[in-house]
Amino acid sequence: MFYHIKELQYEAKPCRPDPVMARKMQEILGGQFGEMSVALQYLFQGWNTRGNEKYRDLLMDTGTEELAHIEMICTMIARLLDGVCPTTLDEAAKDPFIAAILGGSNPQHLIVSGLGAMPSDINGNRWTADYIIASGNLLADFRANLNAESQGRLQVARLYYETEDPGVRDMFAWLLARDTMHQNQWIAAIKELEAQENIVVPSTFPRELEKREVSHTLFNFSRGNESAQGRWAHGPSLDGEGVFNYVEQPVPFAPAPVLPPAPPTAFDTPPLN
Amino acid sequence: MFYHIKELQYEAKPCRPDPVMARKMQEILGGQFGEMSVALQYLFQGWNTRGNEKYRDLLMDTGTEELAHIEMICTMIARLLDGVCPTTLDEAAKDPFIAAILGGSNPQHLIVSGLGAMPSDINGNRWTADYIIASGNLLADFRANLNAESQGRLQVARLYYETEDPGVRDMFAWLLARDTMHQNQWIAAIKELEAQENIVVPSTFPRELEKREVSHTLFNFSRGNESAQGRWAHGPSLDGEGVFNYVEQPVPFAPAPVLPPAPPTAFDTPPLN
Amino acid sequence: MFYHIKELQYEAKPCRPDPVMARKMQEILGGQFGEMSVALQYLFQGWNTRGNEKYRDLLMDTGTEELAHIEMICTMIARLLDGVCPTTLDEAAKDPFIAAILGGSNPQHLIVSGLGAMPSDINGNRWTADYIIASGNLLADFRANLNAESQGRLQVARLYYETEDPGVRDMFAWLLARDTMHQNQWIAAIKELEAQENIVVPSTFPRELEKREVSHTLFNFSRGNESAQGRWAHGPSLDGEGVFNYVEQPVPFAPAPVLPPAPPTAFDTPPLN
Amino acid sequence: MFYHIKELQYEAKPCRPDPVMARKMQEILGGQFGEMSVALQYLFQGWNTRGNEKYRDLLMDTGTEELAHIEMICTMIARLLDGVCPTTLDEAAKDPFIAAILGGSNPQHLIVSGLGAMPSDINGNRWTADYIIASGNLLADFRANLNAESQGRLQVARLYYETEDPGVRDMFAWLLARDTMHQNQWIAAIKELEAQENIVVPSTFPRELEKREVSHTLFNFSRGNESAQGRWAHGPSLDGEGVFNYVEQPVPFAPAPVLPPAPPTAFDTPPLN
Amino acid sequence: MFYHIKELQYEAKPCRPDPVMARKMQEILGGQFGEMSVALQYLFQGWNTRGNEKYRDLLMDTGTEELAHIEMICTMIARLLDGVCPTTLDEAAKDPFIAAILGGSNPQHLIVSGLGAMPSDINGNRWTADYIIASGNLLADFRANLNAESQGRLQVARLYYETEDPGVRDMFAWLLARDTMHQNQWIAAIKELEAQENIVVPSTFPRELEKREVSHTLFNFSRGNESAQGRWAHGPSLDGEGVFNYVEQPVPFAPAPVLPPAPPTAFDTPPLN
Amino acid sequence: MFYHIKELQYEAKPCRPDPVMARKMQEILGGQFGEMSVALQYLFQGWNTRGNEKYRDLLMDTGTEELAHIEMICTMIARLLDGVCPTTLDEAAKDPFIAAILGGSNPQHLIVSGLGAMPSDINGNRWTADYIIASGNLLADFRANLNAESQGRLQVARLYYETEDPGVRDMFAWLLARDTMHQNQWIAAIKELEAQENIVVPSTFPRELEKREVSHTLFNFSRGNESAQGRWAHGPSLDGEGVFNYVEQPVPFAPAPVLPPAPPTAFDTPPLN
Repeated sequence: MFYHIKELQYEAKPCRPDPVMARKMQEILGGQFGEMSVALQYLFQGWNTRGNEKYRDLLMDTGTEELAHIEMICTMIARLLDGVCPTTLDEAAKDPFIAAILGGSNPQHLIVSGLGAMPSDINGNRWTADYIIASGNLLADFRANLNAESQGRLQVARLYYETEDPGVRDMFAWLLARDTMHQNQWIAAIKELEAQENIVVPSTFPRELEKREVSHTLFNFSRGNESAQGRWAHGPSLDGEGVFNYVEQPVPFAPAPVLPPAPPTAFDTPPLN
Repeated sequence: MFYHIKELQYEAKPCRPDPVMARKMQEILGGQFGEMSVALQYLFQGWNTRGNEKYRDLLMDTGTEELAHIEMICTMIARLLDGVCPTTLDEAAKDPFIAAILGGSNPQHLIVSGLGAMPSDINGNRWTADYIIASGNLLADFRANLNAESQGRLQVARLYYETEDPGVRDMFAWLLARDTMHQNQWIAAIKELEAQENIVVPSTFPRELEKREVSHTLFNFSRGNESAQGRWAHGPSLDGEGVFNYVEQPVPFAPAPVLPPAPPTAFDTPPLN
Repeated sequence: MFYHIKELQYEAKPCRPDPVMARKMQEILGGQFGEMSVALQYLFQGWNTRGNEKYRDLLMDTGTEELAHIEMICTMIARLLDGVCPTTLDEAAKDPFIAAILGGSNPQHLIVSGLGAMPSDINGNRWTADYIIASGNLLADFRANLNAESQGRLQVARLYYETEDPGVRDMFAWLLARDTMHQNQWIAAIKELEAQENIVVPSTFPRELEKREVSHTLFNFSRGNESAQGRWAHGPSLDGEGVFNYVEQPVPFAPAPVLPPAPPTAFDTPPLN
Repeated sequence: MFYHIKELQYEAKPCRPDPVMARKMQEILGGQFGEMSVALQYLFQGWNTRGNEKYRDLLMDTGTEELAHIEMICTMIARLLDGVCPTTLDEAAKDPFIAAILGGSNPQHLIVSGLGAMPSDINGNRWTADYIIASGNLLADFRANLNAESQGRLQVARLYYETEDPGVRDMFAWLLARDTMHQNQWIAAIKELEAQENIVVPSTFPRELEKREVSHTLFNFSRGNESAQGRWAHGPSLDGEGVFNYVEQPVPFAPAPVLPPAPPTAFDTPPLN
Repeated sequence: MFYHIKELQYEAKPCRPDPVMARKMQEILGGQFGEMSVALQYLFQGWNTRGNEKYRDLLMDTGTEELAHIEMICTMIARLLDGVCPTTLDEAAKDPFIAAILGGSNPQHLIVSGLGAMPSDINGNRWTADYIIASGNLLADFRANLNAESQGRLQVARLYYETEDPGVRDMFAWLLARDTMHQNQWIAAIKELEAQENIVVPSTFPRELEKREVSHTLFNFSRGNESAQGRWAHGPSLDGEGVFNYVEQPVPFAPAPVLPPAPPTAFDTPPLN
Repeated sequence: MFYHIKELQYEAKPCRPDPVMARKMQEILGGQFGEMSVALQYLFQGWNTRGNEKYRDLLMDTGTEELAHIEMICTMIARLLDGVCPTTLDEAAKDPFIAAILGGSNPQHLIVSGLGAMPSDINGNRWTADYIIASGNLLADFRANLNAESQGRLQVARLYYETEDPGVRDMFAWLLARDTMHQNQWIAAIKELEAQENIVVPSTFPRELEKREVSHTLFNFSRGNESAQGRWAHGPSLDGEGVFNYVEQPVPFAPAPVLPPAPPTAFDTPPLN
């Protein structure tokens, strides 16, 4: 169960309106790696955790914090849109702000949301749960989380240099720091799990059932051998189960398949000569 | 540029038709972590790599191999659908195979694709590029790749125990082994990059610009202290930049926001009493 | 069955080309509350109506009119795009209209549709039937319709002040009036149904089967008591079945859930210490 | 900012596993009118409210409660999936539960989420923010909310009769009651706003700018006059601005449009004879 | 402008309820090549036609007829769902029809639409305007139309043999005949246009601006020469502009690209050694 | 199985950076008829071909070539984005390139992909497999392919006149030529199949089972007789099975449907008076 308080986790106040930055900030709200994605990803992972209360608690802690980040960014966007409309009906059509909101900015911020944040990305694509991941396997999912925090911090860093507004940069500084912590914490959790299991997910699947002769082989399917220089191409494998090897000229292991004709009621093309 | 040969990388031949397994296998073809996702993710990452030819080559090697996996699974699905239709028009409507294909199986395999694989998941959702990730930052993206191979191997492992068909299991054994290698290789590549940069992505953003006082803090937003037991809550931070600390009762840093009324031409609700 | 006549329900003729307004108008054609949404929503509701011919007829009347509105807006968009291209091949690349169409306007209007309207919104998202609602329960659906006409008229009102073109405004004046009627008519129909049933949908579900002790309770989950001032927090409930009450400090009714571990073949993370 | 406690708002415990009901319950979690939709709809409306703190508080109260409902349903789904897998690897492929989970149930509950709830609907379509509405106009949005609660309660009522499990029915009884309250509260809020403004949204758009001669007209576009019997076809209009009238044989107000040819660089079909 | 009459173009009456067939029929209503797709595709093409009134009229004739087909299939689906629910509340949970509707059928037909047709396909994916095509070039679009009618008739033919209900088959017989006509008519229209223009779309683009040396070349990128046997590999080209030729071993025309490093503010991975 | 070589099929090198053209080029990469669509469409058709090796080979040849086109366009887009960012952090926020990338260009090219191509269209909609077609019937599918190459070449032709960059135009000249070949080849394949089967798909469905009296009838549902002038309205039908006829005033063949009330547990609106 959740409680809400009206105060913000951190300040979200720009120094001046900027509808173009309002649009840009949508990416870190409702984009593939926006706050909606991490909030819901962590909460679903938490609710589905079975018998590992420490990790469930960590997921709920972090997911609940991300709800506060959604709130901060929504507030920031609403304020960046302040003053974008003319204040009297007469001056409406000729006001330059109206023009601005339809240049590099998102016209839905006026037409659809009435100067409020939207659950969508920088190009107006609505957020979709296709973005989120919760598999029941914590090591797999923490890797997803580490990726999400890496992509998210990368996007905030790129946005940082597109504004000089100290208020906007101040909130970015907060988000960058929190993403630093979140990368740290998922790495720590991953290390714990890898130490107890194995680095290969899922660790409980019997290894003898996989085709072990190709479990540590790099096939060179792209002509040129630059990739042979990496750690992945020689030496003991990192999972402690074999030795890496490099196959310069991979060959097929099976003949060309020939499918039989479909039966008549499928109405596929019958064999022609 | 690509060349195709007609032979398969590995055999994809079931011992008997099974339209329900044909449906299930769609998840690892066209689902969130199916072969379409990894193939296109690696290829886009490769094409966008700037100035790191070793990694570009590794991405192209692996992406090109995944195209062969798409091909293998498509072939397997088509064969699992063999014999699903009646062979003469008369017996069509009463044949039990027709019933089977509409029970636990996907009826689009007959109506839409005419007994062929589809670019969609286990529930018939078409594949979408929302699933893929290519940011230009290799450390971020290799973490995405490690996650994708973890989720993918997990799904194949779960499918393994839902069939006793030795032909199907044989192909799964191949895919499990290749996913073992791919997890190994992305871990190796991640370690290389982390050693040269820092574990926090992006490593080149100036740390002094983030709000460092919360860069290593775990806020306890979910009542109960189980999460305080982890490595992430105490000791030096893993990025070597600070010390983890735990805040049991987090408080807001900013007051409740109050948004001003919208201008008249936005036609939002004006302030009411 | 439908018949089409070539005349428009109302004039759709701008005074001059304006590719930016052509883009904006896509929102009321193919957006969440555009004419495609109301047309198809009313028609599906009409076709699915069982045994209430008066309402079915009203739905078909209005749905058929909305088809004419789609037609008007498509025509308007095509005319707003007239003259946007250069008239000879030589001057093509340097013509300012080409530049304009790629600034605040939608480049698909040239590249994809060849100066015609598209089934998409202001940001180029294709229309989806996720927008429409038809449940078989008329009171529920008429509330959906009232909402759709409210959102739709709101968007047209906002667009009105973004143009000074008298031709465009003339069509908007028509659409605003029709939305006024449609809001009126759905309110009238809702009142009729509420008078015959109850205001709570579905009215035929036995009330004694719901947990009646919380049927008229406002839980204060957001700290601060502003919401206690509303009619919804005191006095007899509007459905005539109870009395509103306000719970300032809501408490949970159930303990924290603990999920058992997953079985091995799920390959979830087993319990770790 | 939000806080989470681990206790549930209300009990979510079935008497026995039922993977088919687990699938069905996804509709009220991640479907068009599931708890994800209302939670995020109310929160976005709340965050975007400008200058009407009473309504903002009501939205935050209710949105925060809906987060607790997401949590309850996720918990219920996870428990309905308990015991669905075999407990040893040997018996896996022949266990009837595995068969059951692929009949009327959703196979992603095993393959993708590892026996956990998913952010998707009854057919496995991932949740999308296309479902939610936040326009900045409270009267419009409260109508959306009333519709959402009507559709939602309708779906729970239908599900109620598809199970005899007393634990599942007990949670449904809670949800039905809360939806009763939420319908009541949005109706109360709508009445307040209609009394202060007008019933037509947006009430502040100058009426003289709309084409008033058709503001209260029902056009009979579907042959047959059943719809003429309603309150919407005669008497004073409900907005107090006119008198309803009925046009039996609507005629077009504008001639057939003829579009000029496209310029050569559009490469549309030129006029042919 | 459109008028609706309540009569159906053709009878849509099954002999008995069949919820599984109701689900199957959704594919030809709301699938990629269902009636919603062709109706809206032809109408958008018609509204966007510039200066070719004969073709515009043909498109409007056919698009308007397809609206009647949507109506017929909606009616059929509603009737196939008749009697699917228990008739009194008491017997609800144990009625076998309820079980049936959740086996091979679509549970949304009860939970979401209340025994009515839905704007979605056989697997419950909502219809999307991604399915439709209207480019402004009539020859291109008539090829799209010919494809749509070919896929559509193919799907109806496959459905025909999955039922023995004479009422359902009677409606299929109508749809098959209409699709026969529509394939005929688009072929006739294509021939007219090809005779006036050229077979290559767009015919008005200056041929000398394309790289003519590869305008009639088949590159053999898939090892094995079966494809060299076709008409496309030898003889004069069908567009009358050249001679087909076959390149057995295609070679690249350009060197491997090397992208320069990204600037620092992109935060891509810098060149590493 | 596939092999990759690092060389490009054809040069993809612009003369200068142009972020607006980078955005435009996304349409022919990840739009409805971009290279991703044709590549995957041909490959899926090829893998699903049953017993017609000549056509399977042709599909694999062409699908493999389209992979090379994806690669070329990705390379071109990356190069068009070169130099778009400032080279030192200090000048970042005020550099005009940053402004440019957020005007007519796609800001995701910096924020999300770090100056790389994305799997999305000109407006940032991610590519979806809803765009592709593979039915198992080759005549139907080759018509889809002919349409795809027609739409694709049309879009490249329109883009050609929006740039004067000789490097970009040079690559367009290549793509236009290849699309010329591909239109030619699908037309040749279609002619072969039509000669062996019939022009109506599927040709193997028994004609006597369709409602032959309307198999060659044009119904005039759009008032005005322009469409009666076409070849489709008179003379022998093109499939050799009948004679075209034109019905000026189409009438319904079935009465108005009346649906019975739903049973109580559906909670639809019961019949009201």
